[in-house]
Amino acid sequence: MRMGMVGGGRGAFIGGVHRMAAAIDGEIELVCGAFSSDPERSKASGADLYLPPERSYGSFEEMILAEKQLPIGERMDFVSIVTPNHMHFPPAKMALENGFAVVCDKPLAFTLAEAKEIEALVHKTGLLFALTHNYTGYPMVKQARHMVHTGALGKVRKIVVEYPQGWLSTLVESTGSKQASWRTDPSKSGAAGAMGDIGTHAENLAEYISGLHITELCADLTAFVEGRLLDDDGNVLLHFDNGAKGILHASQISNGEENGLNIRIYGETGGLEWHQMEPNTLIHKTNSGVQILRTGVGALCDEALAAARIPAGHPEGYLEAFGNIYKNFARALRKTLNGETPSAIDLDFPGVADGVRGMAFIESVVASSKSDQKWYPFVS
Amino acid sequence: MRMGMVGGGRGAFIGGVHRMAAAIDGEIELVCGAFSSDPERSKASGADLYLPPERSYGSFEEMILAEKQLPIGERMDFVSIVTPNHMHFPPAKMALENGFAVVCDKPLAFTLAEAKEIEALVHKTGLLFALTHNYTGYPMVKQARHMVHTGALGKVRKIVVEYPQGWLSTLVESTGSKQASWRTDPSKSGAAGAMGDIGTHAENLAEYISGLHITELCADLTAFVEGRLLDDDGNVLLHFDNGAKGILHASQISNGEENGLNIRIYGETGGLEWHQMEPNTLIHKTNSGVQILRTGVGALCDEALAAARIPAGHPEGYLEAFGNIYKNFARALRKTLNGETPSAIDLDFPGVADGVRGMAFIESVVASSKSDQKWYPFVS
Amino acid sequence: MRMGMVGGGRGAFIGGVHRMAAAIDGEIELVCGAFSSDPERSKASGADLYLPPERSYGSFEEMILAEKQLPIGERMDFVSIVTPNHMHFPPAKMALENGFAVVCDKPLAFTLAEAKEIEALVHKTGLLFALTHNYTGYPMVKQARHMVHTGALGKVRKIVVEYPQGWLSTLVESTGSKQASWRTDPSKSGAAGAMGDIGTHAENLAEYISGLHITELCADLTAFVEGRLLDDDGNVLLHFDNGAKGILHASQISNGEENGLNIRIYGETGGLEWHQMEPNTLIHKTNSGVQILRTGVGALCDEALAAARIPAGHPEGYLEAFGNIYKNFARALRKTLNGETPSAIDLDFPGVADGVRGMAFIESVVASSKSDQKWYPFVS
Amino acid sequence: MRMGMVGGGRGAFIGGVHRMAAAIDGEIELVCGAFSSDPERSKASGADLYLPPERSYGSFEEMILAEKQLPIGERMDFVSIVTPNHMHFPPAKMALENGFAVVCDKPLAFTLAEAKEIEALVHKTGLLFALTHNYTGYPMVKQARHMVHTGALGKVRKIVVEYPQGWLSTLVESTGSKQASWRTDPSKSGAAGAMGDIGTHAENLAEYISGLHITELCADLTAFVEGRLLDDDGNVLLHFDNGAKGILHASQISNGEENGLNIRIYGETGGLEWHQMEPNTLIHKTNSGVQILRTGVGALCDEALAAARIPAGHPEGYLEAFGNIYKNFARALRKTLNGETPSAIDLDFPGVADGVRGMAFIESVVASSKSDQKWYPFVS
Repeated sequence: MRMGMVGGGRGAFIGGVHRMAAAIDGEIELVCGAFSSDPERSKASGADLYLPPERSYGSFEEMILAEKQLPIGERMDFVSIVTPNHMHFPPAKMALENGFAVVCDKPLAFTLAEAKEIEALVHKTGLLFALTHNYTGYPMVKQARHMVHTGALGKVRKIVVEYPQGWLSTLVESTGSKQASWRTDPSKSGAAGAMGDIGTHAENLAEYISGLHITELCADLTAFVEGRLLDDDGNVLLHFDNGAKGILHASQISNGEENGLNIRIYGETGGLEWHQMEPNTLIHKTNSGVQILRTGVGALCDEALAAARIPAGHPEGYLEAFGNIYKNFARALRKTLNGETPSAIDLDFPGVADGVRGMAFIESVVASSKSDQKWYPFVS
Repeated sequence: MRMGMVGGGRGAFIGGVHRMAAAIDGEIELVCGAFSSDPERSKASGADLYLPPERSYGSFEEMILAEKQLPIGERMDFVSIVTPNHMHFPPAKMALENGFAVVCDKPLAFTLAEAKEIEALVHKTGLLFALTHNYTGYPMVKQARHMVHTGALGKVRKIVVEYPQGWLSTLVESTGSKQASWRTDPSKSGAAGAMGDIGTHAENLAEYISGLHITELCADLTAFVEGRLLDDDGNVLLHFDNGAKGILHASQISNGEENGLNIRIYGETGGLEWHQMEPNTLIHKTNSGVQILRTGVGALCDEALAAARIPAGHPEGYLEAFGNIYKNFARALRKTLNGETPSAIDLDFPGVADGVRGMAFIESVVASSKSDQKWYPFVS
Repeated sequence: MRMGMVGGGRGAFIGGVHRMAAAIDGEIELVCGAFSSDPERSKASGADLYLPPERSYGSFEEMILAEKQLPIGERMDFVSIVTPNHMHFPPAKMALENGFAVVCDKPLAFTLAEAKEIEALVHKTGLLFALTHNYTGYPMVKQARHMVHTGALGKVRKIVVEYPQGWLSTLVESTGSKQASWRTDPSKSGAAGAMGDIGTHAENLAEYISGLHITELCADLTAFVEGRLLDDDGNVLLHFDNGAKGILHASQISNGEENGLNIRIYGETGGLEWHQMEPNTLIHKTNSGVQILRTGVGALCDEALAAARIPAGHPEGYLEAFGNIYKNFARALRKTLNGETPSAIDLDFPGVADGVRGMAFIESVVASSKSDQKWYPFVS
Repeated sequence: MRMGMVGGGRGAFIGGVHRMAAAIDGEIELVCGAFSSDPERSKASGADLYLPPERSYGSFEEMILAEKQLPIGERMDFVSIVTPNHMHFPPAKMALENGFAVVCDKPLAFTLAEAKEIEALVHKTGLLFALTHNYTGYPMVKQARHMVHTGALGKVRKIVVEYPQGWLSTLVESTGSKQASWRTDPSKSGAAGAMGDIGTHAENLAEYISGLHITELCADLTAFVEGRLLDDDGNVLLHFDNGAKGILHASQISNGEENGLNIRIYGETGGLEWHQMEPNTLIHKTNSGVQILRTGVGALCDEALAAARIPAGHPEGYLEAFGNIYKNFARALRKTLNGETPSAIDLDFPGVADGVRGMAFIESVVASSKSDQKWYPFVS
């Protein structure tokens, strides 16, 4: 499938991740991009990527309109949006309105209202839409979901999901770091800092694996670093719709932590534990023993099997998990464009509904943190 | 030093732990006991322990009075109280009033009021009093405290302390388990279940290492198992007196967890992580690298060095950490009885002040959990 | 750079690995292939990969001759050889003789004599040649080499390198497994089974990191599974050229092991430990403490920095390490074709000299294992 | 039971370990000792241990003769020998000849000939004799043995046993270290250094768990530190009596290693892995999955259950494992003295036969290392 990219020019981080993730399986070719709002920079970025100059556009509007004129088989088949949060909505809306499927980085939008508007457009156009909650692309996350859904834990009682990082322990945004700057700028990042950037991943992971929904929460957000404008740490108590209780905490000032997303889920008859930094291991605990499940070993669910490329013990990591979203999306899109029906595994990628819940999460935790009310409703 | 024990007869758990911990260093000899409120059972228990029948007493009152009549050098030097929570106060009070030093299992008492009465008696009599918050006996916990206090982390910002267990995932108390029964019985355990039994250890560990005090908290306690009368799980947000934020959660329904007490502390310039189940390892993380500190390796603080008995790589565990309280207490007591002044390391054991804070913690979390008020004051 | 592939058709394993590794960085495009010695199968495989039919060739000879006729900028720039061992030499020789650079899977050839002939051709033609000893592509392996070379361990005394796998614990080759069949067939695999397939990786890793050469060895090879024609396990004592001693063992009957390549190197003043299954961690031990080095954290050597794509804690794995060989090779090749000089980092990939030592290792351990002589010379 | 100790005075290491191990379970009381060959030092050591002066003897001969005169119920019931290796034989012989049971540190003696003489005396007198191969006292080592013996792995094919330490990486014996000095002195340690001190533990562990015997071996011993008189490192290939192959390596110059004894055993249908530094975990691997067995969790064998004192997750360590030898020995001795028959679990401790094999191992590896013959017979 042919991909056009919005954002991801020189100096960007997540754009390169999307390109590597899209390239790895040989299903997707980058054919064009609006890599920067600065046309010169966009062209230079396209040249770095071996694109012909005429397909490095000066704006996403230009790209969408120009590509639409190209014949099928040459023009881009979908748009990948990898800009900062405040610039998700405009290209997503225009791409959908012009008939292009979309892959969008998370969180879905700048506000919950925008998110709902995109959701409505997706429903109206029937176009494919993937949101890169990439951590659900790991094989063992899929296996964990399968085990919860098929009753390996009994009724879920408690969920602990954590996302500690340490890289914003100081005022990095004052040092010229592009990554730190937009993430801590309310005009680009949105209502939340850490809770939007990584807290939403934690929320999505907990709901994805458990199949439960958060109904109310109690949040304590903090901006620890002096001069910082958005939260860099947050601790949240959770209530789920089946009566389960939970804890979610995310932090970018947990000095010395790299990218420590992890989750533990406890049910009546067992528990599961997974760590993003050792992603090919899933720990299944019960009071009578512990079993280690591993990517590529033994009987795993179909989704987990489909998400691994190489034999056990050959570690697949972040890019491969990210690539699973692109791979499934590309296969679903190819079939859709060919008039075929995508399989359930083709469609195993996060979508616009995840994005709406993510935006609702952001708005809920920010409101809760400011409130004296103990339990704040999570409304999406 | 000669020890008389209250509780710990046949079928008890923690009594045996206290005896092994007291025996390991050759500083303490068990000379008498009131092992059970049933005189026959007490005698039989004493015989199991190779005690002469005349020193197995039918009640703690009898023991205290009789031992007081024996000459110094023969009579017990201190009382060790290992009964369920509701039976800590009476023997502690009587022992102190009769001039005996005391080692008491935690939590200190049944209510905060009792705890404060014991504290007043300790202050009045000047007698030595140890509370077995045994997890602070580990060498690497002492090293962690030392590092926080000497600035290795900078100002502390966030503390996450967890204590998951899984053994009460079902209604074990209905199966005849002595350990489960009293811990889940409000008339013996007190106002809290899991939060009293293990939550207090978590609270104590966090305050011990950080040197901070909790000032307010927001608790969500649950009794998940149908028919259970006290909480078996609790999630708590914390505020500390220096502005640090925290999370404490303790659970006895985290199916598959053994005895997973652990703590992470993050400051401006680094973080520390310690797990009770791998107690000889302390992880010191900063954004520029990770250092593993180990019992017996390299330069550790004096308290940590004094708390280890054998070279690095020869694992010391729970009983040794527990034994450190007894060892230090015995050495302090011997010096005190000889008219000498105990050293700082002799006095490195938890005491009555820790016990008062523990009881205040129990009362605070129980009240907070019932309240609609978000932040509840922690008053001790 | 444009890649033509020899081997790697439907049902193959390592061909897909090479394609993903080559694709990930956007530096290489697969333009043609002789995927199978069966022309039909080759065409079908090419179609799976979205290649036009005219560039799926029926043989490597046909491919090399036809591509040579295409204009530069269209024809393949290099050949990637991913066939079983006995089919490395013919295409490598012909590619070099026709002016194409080569990437070749390991071991280099079927015999040491073939390996030396390829080495001579590489020297004669001056063409770039990469051998995919992919495990040296990991950032922390490069960091380990750097640390040894810059004296972090002092003089090296002992090396322990292990490569346990379990997948050949039964006679898998009798069940129709394509992977097992050729690897255990002396006519395709060569003189050794496990020692050729994975033992050579262990040998290469030890020599790569330490900078030392094995001078003599004492081997004990076994075919444990009844009916197996080649060794499935081997234990080897090693002597190195600086006086260091070592142990190398590789096994494909270590039931329950996945792909457990690991190495420990001890010098006068410290030790290093690295495990392929947790590749982003390098453990630096000394008698005064342990330091954990991590991909993306702190000050690493230039080669390690260049070998990582994403921030710390976003695990990069086997394909990324494999991709580092392709990425560096492609950059070196591009510069070479442009008349520029590749940098030291561009040239940081294993080459034909590694391949010759690998073949010498195979011949030495096979001969040693059959000998009553204790120490057998390692001659390459 | 009443214990008299030979050796273990001020400045000793293993004597204190024996005393703590003996004390922990309340079954053994230290009643006398010949703690040093210097009578003054012996008395002072006894006083440190709260012994009356008349039971601190100036020599083991004096102790054995004097204690023999005391009435039963007052005199020592057994002798514990904790001297350097060259001083095991004389007190063991005299104790046995005077009717005292013996606990002896390992290795059993200075030479194989001495070891056989002790063995003959044990058989002749019928007295109980324990050898403190303490690592077999761990619950999970007992569980491993049980699993191998009951077929969990199928026929054993490969054993890898390692014992790396780093503390002798420099010429510590020249710095006044008592521990280093006698261990590296051929007149006190015997024919081997590291192989006697720790290699014998590795050999014992491999044979204990597997139930197999080494039949021949190929050793490569080295004294890496200049000026050292005995081996500080050794690598050994092993052949076992059922056809299994193995590797044993032990080292005291593996810089940065603490006390890293570990073992992996692979059979036709599965593998086991155990590490002394995380002793409460036993890893059971098969090609279809990994199971973690833990002290105190689930269904373990009777010997493992009897070897643990406290619930799962309360780590028991080195002293507790060591104590299991003393506990079982004391119980067996009490029953024997009372005319009862000890149970199989009472008798679950290493004995004189283990000691004879250990001495044969030492003599075999030393001879093999000097030989040009590839395979050297292991004769005991």
